[in-house]
Amino acid sequence: SMSRRPTSSIKWNALTVHSQFGYYMKEGMRTSVEAILLVQEHNHPHILLLQIGNTFCKLPGGRLKPGENEIEGLKRKLTSKLGANSPALVPDWQIGECVAIWWRPNFETIMYPYCPPHITKPKECKKLFLVHLSEREYFAVPKNLKLLAVPLFELYDNVQRYGPVISTIPQQLSRFQFNMITT
Amino acid sequence: SMSRRPTSSIKWNALTVHSQFGYYMKEGMRTSVEAILLVQEHNHPHILLLQIGNTFCKLPGGRLKPGENEIEGLKRKLTSKLGANSPALVPDWQIGECVAIWWRPNFETIMYPYCPPHITKPKECKKLFLVHLSEREYFAVPKNLKLLAVPLFELYDNVQRYGPVISTIPQQLSRFQFNMITT
Ligand SMILES: [Zn+2]
Ligand SMILES: [Zn+2]
Ligand SMILES: [Zn+2]
Ligand SMILES: [Zn+2]
Repeated sequence: SMSRRPTSSIKWNALTVHSQFGYYMKEGMRTSVEAILLVQEHNHPHILLLQIGNTFCKLPGGRLKPGENEIEGLKRKLTSKLGANSPALVPDWQIGECVAIWWRPNFETIMYPYCPPHITKPKECKKLFLVHLSEREYFAVPKNLKLLAVPLFELYDNVQRYGPVISTIPQQLSRFQFNMITT
Repeated sequence: SMSRRPTSSIKWNALTVHSQFGYYMKEGMRTSVEAILLVQEHNHPHILLLQIGNTFCKLPGGRLKPGENEIEGLKRKLTSKLGANSPALVPDWQIGECVAIWWRPNFETIMYPYCPPHITKPKECKKLFLVHLSEREYFAVPKNLKLLAVPLFELYDNVQRYGPVISTIPQQLSRFQFNMITT
């Protein structure tokens, strides 16, 4: 058995956490909500990304209106970005777990996965939600965009191509088991 | 309103997820469990790391015995690494959310935050759990180790110093709100 220091009481304050699901964001902070749409292609999990031009990729979603609930806002954005043209085919978006929150302390800086110390009024906040698709969805994609299914291993550690937010999604989904359909 | 492609049904299979909390790992796979112990110091969240020598840092935890339940195994490891010398002071570890799972497909390779495609028998798996401390804990640290409280902003994007697993913890905790005690 190892040699030990004498028992000492810890000097730090214990810290508990709670989930930030479904609450209203602070007034005056620009808030956007984005969707992680998971699909299965040749037996691997893939994420749907909207491609603009030949390189830039983004998650479907967008900015909330002042005072808008984040769940309702994400449904509105998904319908406006991906919804079919027919009102009979409006998807019933199932918004699931919040998997990430990113903060921009000032408009000049990059985003961080925490609100940096001594920043009491961050300028912007971005929340990522899992969105559960039904077996078959009807999407219509604007003509200037492409909808791509990108595998997790392509995103992982690929900050050059996808940026810090999208390239970290594999680490944020790692705690889940994917319910793969064996085909 | 934007010009749209005609509505088309999505070609991909929708994929759902479920949490991997509290289940038994596959036989024959080396499994380790590690704890994220959160503390508050000068009003920022910090994580407790064990430092070996002057540079190498690790989370408290360790390898499961064959067939051992991961929650029980993590409690056993925490008591053996950090528990006070007195049986009267054995902490009542509260194991919380699983926040990350890492996989090593072969002993020669690095870890990934997913089981890579076409790997049916990964060699190793590491699971990270939040562990809720009570207001005051009694720890005893082996003499060859130091227990450090490291702030999230020191870990973030610092893969050189902390490696891929520890440096990604801020992104994996970003979805939580910290219940800071205002002092
Ligand atoms: Zn400070
Ligand atoms: Zn693919
Ligand atoms: Zn394949
Ligand atoms: Zn500190």
